[in-house]
Amino acid sequence: MTVPAQSDPTRGALFDPVFGAGDLAPLLSDRAWITALLEVEVAITRAAEKHGRATPADVAGVAAAAEDLARDLDPAELGRLSAAGGNPVIPLVKILRERAGVPAAAVHVGATSQDVLDSALMLLAREAGRRVVAELRAAADAAAHLARRHRDTPTVARTLGQQALPTTFGVLAATWLVALDDATFELDRALSALPVQYGGAAGTLAAVHPDGLAFADTLADLLGLARPLVPWHTARTPITRLATALGVAAGAVAKPATDVVLMAATEFGEVSEDAPGGSSAMPHKRNPVAAITARAAARRVPGLVATVLASTDHEFARAAGAWHAEWEPLTDLIRLTGGAAHQLSTSIGGLHVHPDALARNLDRTGGAILAEKVTAALAQHTDDARDIVTAAAQAGTPLDRDPAITGHLGAERVRALLDPTRYLGHAGDLVDRALAHHDRLLGGQA
Amino acid sequence: MTVPAQSDPTRGALFDPVFGAGDLAPLLSDRAWITALLEVEVAITRAAEKHGRATPADVAGVAAAAEDLARDLDPAELGRLSAAGGNPVIPLVKILRERAGVPAAAVHVGATSQDVLDSALMLLAREAGRRVVAELRAAADAAAHLARRHRDTPTVARTLGQQALPTTFGVLAATWLVALDDATFELDRALSALPVQYGGAAGTLAAVHPDGLAFADTLADLLGLARPLVPWHTARTPITRLATALGVAAGAVAKPATDVVLMAATEFGEVSEDAPGGSSAMPHKRNPVAAITARAAARRVPGLVATVLASTDHEFARAAGAWHAEWEPLTDLIRLTGGAAHQLSTSIGGLHVHPDALARNLDRTGGAILAEKVTAALAQHTDDARDIVTAAAQAGTPLDRDPAITGHLGAERVRALLDPTRYLGHAGDLVDRALAHHDRLLGGQA
Amino acid sequence: MTVPAQSDPTRGALFDPVFGAGDLAPLLSDRAWITALLEVEVAITRAAEKHGRATPADVAGVAAAAEDLARDLDPAELGRLSAAGGNPVIPLVKILRERAGVPAAAVHVGATSQDVLDSALMLLAREAGRRVVAELRAAADAAAHLARRHRDTPTVARTLGQQALPTTFGVLAATWLVALDDATFELDRALSALPVQYGGAAGTLAAVHPDGLAFADTLADLLGLARPLVPWHTARTPITRLATALGVAAGAVAKPATDVVLMAATEFGEVSEDAPGGSSAMPHKRNPVAAITARAAARRVPGLVATVLASTDHEFARAAGAWHAEWEPLTDLIRLTGGAAHQLSTSIGGLHVHPDALARNLDRTGGAILAEKVTAALAQHTDDARDIVTAAAQAGTPLDRDPAITGHLGAERVRALLDPTRYLGHAGDLVDRALAHHDRLLGGQA
Amino acid sequence: MTVPAQSDPTRGALFDPVFGAGDLAPLLSDRAWITALLEVEVAITRAAEKHGRATPADVAGVAAAAEDLARDLDPAELGRLSAAGGNPVIPLVKILRERAGVPAAAVHVGATSQDVLDSALMLLAREAGRRVVAELRAAADAAAHLARRHRDTPTVARTLGQQALPTTFGVLAATWLVALDDATFELDRALSALPVQYGGAAGTLAAVHPDGLAFADTLADLLGLARPLVPWHTARTPITRLATALGVAAGAVAKPATDVVLMAATEFGEVSEDAPGGSSAMPHKRNPVAAITARAAARRVPGLVATVLASTDHEFARAAGAWHAEWEPLTDLIRLTGGAAHQLSTSIGGLHVHPDALARNLDRTGGAILAEKVTAALAQHTDDARDIVTAAAQAGTPLDRDPAITGHLGAERVRALLDPTRYLGHAGDLVDRALAHHDRLLGGQA
Repeated sequence: MTVPAQSDPTRGALFDPVFGAGDLAPLLSDRAWITALLEVEVAITRAAEKHGRATPADVAGVAAAAEDLARDLDPAELGRLSAAGGNPVIPLVKILRERAGVPAAAVHVGATSQDVLDSALMLLAREAGRRVVAELRAAADAAAHLARRHRDTPTVARTLGQQALPTTFGVLAATWLVALDDATFELDRALSALPVQYGGAAGTLAAVHPDGLAFADTLADLLGLARPLVPWHTARTPITRLATALGVAAGAVAKPATDVVLMAATEFGEVSEDAPGGSSAMPHKRNPVAAITARAAARRVPGLVATVLASTDHEFARAAGAWHAEWEPLTDLIRLTGGAAHQLSTSIGGLHVHPDALARNLDRTGGAILAEKVTAALAQHTDDARDIVTAAAQAGTPLDRDPAITGHLGAERVRALLDPTRYLGHAGDLVDRALAHHDRLLGGQA
Repeated sequence: MTVPAQSDPTRGALFDPVFGAGDLAPLLSDRAWITALLEVEVAITRAAEKHGRATPADVAGVAAAAEDLARDLDPAELGRLSAAGGNPVIPLVKILRERAGVPAAAVHVGATSQDVLDSALMLLAREAGRRVVAELRAAADAAAHLARRHRDTPTVARTLGQQALPTTFGVLAATWLVALDDATFELDRALSALPVQYGGAAGTLAAVHPDGLAFADTLADLLGLARPLVPWHTARTPITRLATALGVAAGAVAKPATDVVLMAATEFGEVSEDAPGGSSAMPHKRNPVAAITARAAARRVPGLVATVLASTDHEFARAAGAWHAEWEPLTDLIRLTGGAAHQLSTSIGGLHVHPDALARNLDRTGGAILAEKVTAALAQHTDDARDIVTAAAQAGTPLDRDPAITGHLGAERVRALLDPTRYLGHAGDLVDRALAHHDRLLGGQA
Repeated sequence: MTVPAQSDPTRGALFDPVFGAGDLAPLLSDRAWITALLEVEVAITRAAEKHGRATPADVAGVAAAAEDLARDLDPAELGRLSAAGGNPVIPLVKILRERAGVPAAAVHVGATSQDVLDSALMLLAREAGRRVVAELRAAADAAAHLARRHRDTPTVARTLGQQALPTTFGVLAATWLVALDDATFELDRALSALPVQYGGAAGTLAAVHPDGLAFADTLADLLGLARPLVPWHTARTPITRLATALGVAAGAVAKPATDVVLMAATEFGEVSEDAPGGSSAMPHKRNPVAAITARAAARRVPGLVATVLASTDHEFARAAGAWHAEWEPLTDLIRLTGGAAHQLSTSIGGLHVHPDALARNLDRTGGAILAEKVTAALAQHTDDARDIVTAAAQAGTPLDRDPAITGHLGAERVRALLDPTRYLGHAGDLVDRALAHHDRLLGGQA
Repeated sequence: MTVPAQSDPTRGALFDPVFGAGDLAPLLSDRAWITALLEVEVAITRAAEKHGRATPADVAGVAAAAEDLARDLDPAELGRLSAAGGNPVIPLVKILRERAGVPAAAVHVGATSQDVLDSALMLLAREAGRRVVAELRAAADAAAHLARRHRDTPTVARTLGQQALPTTFGVLAATWLVALDDATFELDRALSALPVQYGGAAGTLAAVHPDGLAFADTLADLLGLARPLVPWHTARTPITRLATALGVAAGAVAKPATDVVLMAATEFGEVSEDAPGGSSAMPHKRNPVAAITARAAARRVPGLVATVLASTDHEFARAAGAWHAEWEPLTDLIRLTGGAAHQLSTSIGGLHVHPDALARNLDRTGGAILAEKVTAALAQHTDDARDIVTAAAQAGTPLDRDPAITGHLGAERVRALLDPTRYLGHAGDLVDRALAHHDRLLGGQA
């Protein structure tokens, strides 16, 4: 087979939709990077103008050139030019200077490549990060909806894969909810703290002294980023806090996605997605594709968090490798966490819960799951309670027919003890708590 | 060689001191685990007493038995007994019940194994975590001291391994400081949020209904842990938030440790540790052992963070593996992060900074590092400024002797431009900012 | 509660048995480290004697002292002494010299700390690694036994959590087997290549020139380690190959452990372990503890592999941190991989397979899983085959009663098509292949 | 600033060239994936024809359609269609069937999506992997060239960042070489073992029974992939062995890249790259960009290896997430490892070694680095040798002027002992060994 010349090096269009990142991808693409880099450069010239280091005409020239370049500049061309210096800012500044037709001193004022790249990365992270937060909130809302709707729907709690005791589907969904809410709060907090980076070649702001500190603040305000205490070009807590908040969020997605995959199994049959995936070969298949791909995306996050955390040893005033190693892992983290959240939101947002299957499974052990309760009641009468109940359970004897038990408690009482709806404990209270907390967060957000 | 029978399976005594965890290790050892597990059980019985489910005599019996067991119980014996059920709580409760001589119902009231193990892990994390915070604060204080003392000591900023521009040693230390302060704040925040876990076998608090919510709060208060919104046995954000806060902290340690190792290199000679390591074979060696082992400990953290983040897919109401995979990685994370902080604190707390070496290195390029400044001044006179200065630098011509430059600026002006102490920008301001912030944090802490 | 003074820093006794590493732990403990370090020192003096650099009396003195120290030396004491230099070899050599009563030049001949520590680590890895291989082989044998026994036992293949088509339990077990065999082969290969390290302070063997190359070979032979091409103190492929072979092995363990946990779920009920874990509260529980803890141990491996792989940037002739970061992660990798293999071997070595449950589950969709086959047959008659079968499946109509199908194929033929035992494809052949390959490996091993 | 509508989701064109993957990227792009998927489908129909399950006309139709689609099919369109089923094979088969104009039964014969995707991934890995091997070989050749050329060029060995003893630059380069050769051998071995995957919906080859085993072999041969023992859809050792071989290779790249960055530091000045990166602001900068970006690329590898290793728990006959989580991490691993190797090859292939700087640095301690040798000689005369030499070193007294030393040895002898070129041990031998081994590998390869 003659394959076409494989000249196109790009990726993302094929797999991002599979992993839920179809909408996020353009915010983190090559084009988005170029736009953000230019946005920072324009803001630098604007800040310079505010501090008397550039003219309004300079600003106009740079802004116009940047707008053109954001639209037209070929990423592959910029990529090729970037290799020589190890980052795209060096050639971009050159191109921008040529295109803007302003004095060289009015472009990239007092800045170094890392200032522009780090600040641009913060812009990407903020914009795309907000989308991730929105996806997480949509997933949390879906969990809240399920918790509310199934507040009192009995199901069986499984521990270590084994049926344990009754609970409600609402409690399960509430568990999803609190972790999603917690993670969303943390991510939102990390996003709000994303700072501008502006320190100049050595991090001393020497080139714009004595206006440096004010210049940095102006730049932060223009870009809508936080004002940092000092330049953080080698103090990477803004990066690690962001990366780890994404890691926590992906973790909060993994659990409900796993539960959905398990409950959708043929043998459980308790839930199904609204648009399950089919199979070209097997028409009976109802694959919970959204939950599956949510899991897959979430699984790819921890390794990337480790990569970012392992790249904090920035030596001296600019790291020879540790810095460069952050760029793509960070955008990958955002894309995958957001994709995972999107897929989870799709999965549980349209989840069909089958109460009949829940009830059937709850009944599967014939009441053995409430042995705990019978044991406790029996223990009022005999010290051998545990042994008696264990023996009956192992022999498969229904507990309400074992004389060693009914002799003390009576069959009626035993059957009442074995009624799952009478042993839900604080299930409803827990759902209410989680929902109230979620509502408070929504209120705080509005 | 006949080696002794290798019957002792324990570890930690040999390598923990090397990695700075000598003091932390007993807080996270087998003995510490047993003690914490028992502490939770005692608190459960105390809470039961407050809610009318146990008597004062029960409390006394359980507390006395627990105190004995915390001292005497052989970890290896408990370990062997733990294998059958997959966790140490099951046999421990059995032993405690036997030893306490109280009704079985007065021990482990309404609890499941995970309640006890998770809560004990929170106790270990809080106690050992506070020690980690103290180590981080000691390292931050040492950085602050260096920043204050060397606020105005010139040194050269290196970017990508190359000398770039002048800065001060104070700025470098201030960079260490802000990341350490930031990370310490985050870790302290995570520790303050560590919650008790108490949900019973299914997470519904059914066994202590209708007192379950109040019981859980009582238990939290008795143990000094936070009151959770709902049981978090499978909503692991408390775990991931703690693990990632430790990861951020280890990252903040890695950077200064790396800088010290580099500056202590024979070719730099700018710093030396107070108690450098020697060599049995090479008496001239002055190994910066504390910084080296701080780096080593910090390097082991990201992989463990990934392990914890990858274990959030707790299925249903108790995970069959993901839960168990958290225990030791979490205590390892605490030990290694604390050890890294301890070693860093040792390293920079006693750091000898050699201003003569700083000055010698600053002078090594014969002023070329201030080419930026000459270029800028020259650019007022000619559009070829950059080319002229680059040519001189490449030819090795001192800039104050190149007629193409001095013709415009005069040799005196060029020499002034090349004076590093006149191009420190906001170095002093940045140090002052970082120190003021550090002092505020200390105030808030007091 | 008054807790005892927490002076014991050791760990391992409590949790190693839970994660299957009870037998392995003594091979990787503090005591094992001390013994291995001394074994290397004794071999160095022996090699020196063979090359005329020490006397038989030196050998006797060193060997006797080493034997005593291996038995008596307190790991905690050596640990404390090790902190100053950053590794235990420096103080150990000092103690050994004092104890041996031989000339200083007869101990640690031509060696540097790293030579001894690296070689000792190889000894630990070889001994403990062989145990890991044995555990993996036991697990593979157990898989082979199941594959042979259940070669023709029908079960349902699940894809993406959904029932797909019939297969046999033997095929599932054979899949476990081939991955375990493959991984065991690779680990065995990596162990066989573990080399001695001996290069002296700078890696040039200068102190024992001109006998250096021969000396290194002698040392390798004495210790039973491979002869390296050149010293590998900073060329860490022996370390990374070992670590990754362990990672591959842990991966081969994770899959069967996961399958067992799922099939042991109450809703599946297809397998149970021979000694399932109970619950203090829930007498009906049958937790597949061995598989659960196998999974848990295996999950902790990838992060540690990443740590080792991230520590290959050994600068110059001895790394300032990257080297130290390898030690404990490597022994942890061995312990966890071996523990995971041990638990898997326990789990599947005593696995009860329940053919009735397999059959019941296979029948659960009422034949829908063989829709593929009906579709294929029907496609010979109509282009709408897939639509017809899909419609019937979605409507819940038994395929042998849908006139749109039986009109073409007849009910009898449809029922034959839906008989799972007639659609097992090459199931038996695949089992036979895997078993024959396993037997060949065993032959090669014998 | 009005930014353009960010509709393009693709990436890779901007950063891949920076990280050395410019040439590799097209082999792993969206287009390459589509081509490989189609290549597998064509081979399946060809195999079907050989086994009497398709006609020559079917082959012609499928091959022609595939060729068109490989050229024309829009990755973004296929990506959108792939989301519903969770992988691109489902819609691709549909499109191919429509375009080919052959009976449906002649396309995707007996196959399931995973068969096609896994086999396509193996094709990508083989093609791109060979390119990685070529890059590694180029780097190894460059290391061999440096080792040969500088076999006898003295330099100083540094341990723990401190000058230790003399060695040669050749030894350093030989250390690079052996690790690169070892890693290349392992990767080549892993590539040679990449197997075809073909098992059908349940892994039993039922749809092509009784020709299944032969069919699978035919398919392997047609695609030039290895014949597997059995289908490996859930036995992922082929994946983990590949991923870990890449991890080992990236580790072998990290060390020389780190050495180059350090030796290129202004304070060392021992090497410079042939095309160092400049700075827009600092004309004196000579950044070793190739080594820097090699390090950066290599640093991103371990986390991805962990991701792949953590995704081996493929449940039952197709994993609901663990499978999907392998795809992009695996191609990222290939791209980053190949990119790192490419950048290293660029760096050391054009490396300028400055013997004058090596000599100057070697002389920097005034002979103290050979204190070991003086100590050894002095030890023949006095038991206080170490103390005497240590005292002199700490006092800064030249050893050939300390009477406590010269009284025993004479100044001449001391100076001879301090001559670095007389203490190179087996440096030359080690270089020769490494080169001979490299030549043998090249011979075996030819």
